[in-house]
Amino acid sequence: MNELIAGVVAGLRHGRPMRLADEVQALRALPAANVAGQLAAMPAERAVTLLDQPEFANAPEVLGLLPVDKAALLVTEMAADRAADVLATMGNGAAAIIDALPLDVRVSLTALIAWPIDSAGGMMTTEFVTVPAGATIRETLAHIRSVERSRETVYSVFVLDAVGRLAATVSLRRLIAAEPDSLFVETVAEQSPITIAPETDREAVAELIRRHDLLALPVVDADGFPLGIVTVDDVLDALVAAHTEDAQKFGGVEALDRPYLETGFAAMIRKRAGWLSVLFLSEMLTASAMQHFETELERAVVLTLFIPLIMSSGGNSGSQATSLIIRALAVGQLRLRDWWRVALRELPTGLTLGTILGLVGAGRIALWQLAGFYDYGVHWALIALTVSLGLIGIVTFGSLAGSMLPFALQRLRFDPASASAPFVATLVDVTGLVIYFSIALLVLSGTLL
Amino acid sequence: MNELIAGVVAGLRHGRPMRLADEVQALRALPAANVAGQLAAMPAERAVTLLDQPEFANAPEVLGLLPVDKAALLVTEMAADRAADVLATMGNGAAAIIDALPLDVRVSLTALIAWPIDSAGGMMTTEFVTVPAGATIRETLAHIRSVERSRETVYSVFVLDAVGRLAATVSLRRLIAAEPDSLFVETVAEQSPITIAPETDREAVAELIRRHDLLALPVVDADGFPLGIVTVDDVLDALVAAHTEDAQKFGGVEALDRPYLETGFAAMIRKRAGWLSVLFLSEMLTASAMQHFETELERAVVLTLFIPLIMSSGGNSGSQATSLIIRALAVGQLRLRDWWRVALRELPTGLTLGTILGLVGAGRIALWQLAGFYDYGVHWALIALTVSLGLIGIVTFGSLAGSMLPFALQRLRFDPASASAPFVATLVDVTGLVIYFSIALLVLSGTLL
Repeated sequence: MNELIAGVVAGLRHGRPMRLADEVQALRALPAANVAGQLAAMPAERAVTLLDQPEFANAPEVLGLLPVDKAALLVTEMAADRAADVLATMGNGAAAIIDALPLDVRVSLTALIAWPIDSAGGMMTTEFVTVPAGATIRETLAHIRSVERSRETVYSVFVLDAVGRLAATVSLRRLIAAEPDSLFVETVAEQSPITIAPETDREAVAELIRRHDLLALPVVDADGFPLGIVTVDDVLDALVAAHTEDAQKFGGVEALDRPYLETGFAAMIRKRAGWLSVLFLSEMLTASAMQHFETELERAVVLTLFIPLIMSSGGNSGSQATSLIIRALAVGQLRLRDWWRVALRELPTGLTLGTILGLVGAGRIALWQLAGFYDYGVHWALIALTVSLGLIGIVTFGSLAGSMLPFALQRLRFDPASASAPFVATLVDVTGLVIYFSIALLVLSGTLL
Repeated sequence: MNELIAGVVAGLRHGRPMRLADEVQALRALPAANVAGQLAAMPAERAVTLLDQPEFANAPEVLGLLPVDKAALLVTEMAADRAADVLATMGNGAAAIIDALPLDVRVSLTALIAWPIDSAGGMMTTEFVTVPAGATIRETLAHIRSVERSRETVYSVFVLDAVGRLAATVSLRRLIAAEPDSLFVETVAEQSPITIAPETDREAVAELIRRHDLLALPVVDADGFPLGIVTVDDVLDALVAAHTEDAQKFGGVEALDRPYLETGFAAMIRKRAGWLSVLFLSEMLTASAMQHFETELERAVVLTLFIPLIMSSGGNSGSQATSLIIRALAVGQLRLRDWWRVALRELPTGLTLGTILGLVGAGRIALWQLAGFYDYGVHWALIALTVSLGLIGIVTFGSLAGSMLPFALQRLRFDPASASAPFVATLVDVTGLVIYFSIALLVLSGTLL
């Protein structure tokens, strides 16, 4: 019976999760104390299987509520990468548990915790399979069989040289396909495998695994010694997390740490009020710009009618350009040095888009005037011209500014994804008002102004 | 020598890509005719390896330039899922090549082409490994060894029942770990594997693979017969493509079909002018709203000074709420029926954020007035009150509208990601003006208005 449970649990850990994810989702909705009680009561293997799921978002909290020796026992059995993530987010409570761990686990976990959570070091696990150079294929397969239970992946095996540096990697697929199995493992191994440094950003790791269709990627130190392995399932989780963070940043929200409905009211306000206030303070410059043109505004109130229209068109075209460039930079279609090629494309694109909107805008004013829907005064044609030229200028500026901002941020070593839509819109709003009123002064000087 | 090349090429196809992705990137920069010439001249295995890369974006064009019999030869050898994708995007040129294919390849490719490219059917390959129920583990491993060369993945094997329906799946890992190998394969297989229907959306496929840490997912028809297999590397590609499409949609651009720098000028204008014009036409309602309040505007020009500030705050808060909800819906943290829970959270959140901005705004007006930077007139305190109340109303409305829009779109079976930042901003702009002027009429009636 016990063997049966162990078998089921091993099955759960190794790719046959009997709707485990659904159980975790159910657990997450319960109070942490309740979940801690359940974990303490169930067999350790089962508790470990549950804790190993990255979706178990309140695992750090739950672990902190367990007796220290029980928590240490569970952490010892957990996948090293997941255990490190959980301990890293536990805060002060982690120290007592770490002190209670067996020495070898303590050493490997503290090494893992040291890396930022969004780096290759933070994503990797230390539970990889190694064989010495000179092993045969048969010996390698026998070794895999003997350690399989305790390894996160056995689909990629590291071949080490005499001093323990990574010499080659070999996939389980190549090992299985190779015949005869008395050959040295090197004969089927990849001799210059793609490796990464532990400080590599998670999106770069994901892109490398995706581009080269890998199941796992070795992490090595500067001297070529293997530190860990990043597996494709960690990369999938990282991609989804990065996608969420990017989407939130682009919407002008600081990335949430927890799912929407699980984020508390105070945390939600904190994550949103900061950016919103910064944008609000910057946008106050529009009031200053308007005050500057106070005389013109009083003389020609008709000009104010089109301010929202013109401002939003600038913001929209900027938002388009920014979203295109952020993604192209993120997936490596564009590099920093391509900025001038982008500028040379956005200039004619902005002019064309601005002209299209300018013609529609002038048509709208002419139609309303001639059909008698509204009276823009005797100088309505000049007003239409002002609005058209304003749109051309602002849409061109919006496209240029929106496309250059991600490059500028990347150059300054910020995340280009921080060039959020609201940020670009605010930048374009202030400049847009100045462009609009300057054109009005040129066109309407001597008539309305 | 030929064996060596075959070995290298096989290595390239099976997870040891000697920086193949970089070669593809270089090829993509050359004119299609040039690339076609190179492909025709190189050994077929090498050409197939290159064509199999999803990054080879101009493969359809290149294939169309080759003699039909040569093209058919290459397509026959390509991975079935990739071949189907390439033929599906070739347009008219594909028919001649399909006619020249061997019957079995033609049947399996036309079946694959029939599925939308962003469905499980469009992502799957038909090159999976099957064994009959009752096979031993040893027989299964021997079978894997014999077909390994022609299969996209051997890490997941399908066990079929007597009539050929999918009865179970087993991972290569479980097969290797199992002892003795004279046992039936069922003893280590997953008896009720997670399967998907071919019409499943690619993001749902990705979420399932990610949640359950799978390397491959069987696609079965309504009767349980296996149609194909979706592998984790296809899912990675699909996730990145979906991320790009979402980011572009959120920025108010129709998703581009090609990388930014490879998209032609005309295509770029088409992708951006449509949305921009729709938003522009909707935003014209702001001009109508302003015209409606013409008398008030003429009497109190001072009110116009804060229009950009108030409009943009509404747009920003709407953009925040929308980006949070779109992602939460996309990753399954929220369901359609949760809309009222979100509304109940966004109402107090919007009120709080609006109050924060309102206080800052009133403070700004008081400071400018009292410090003598600008004179808002004798009723400056009432103007500050109008701006504050306006901000509270508009930020609350923006948060509510921005959070409810993705639900409404999902309910109407549109992609919630279409609730782009510019779309929300436009919606909030028009309403925001009406809210602002209505509050102004209430507060300033009898004094300024």
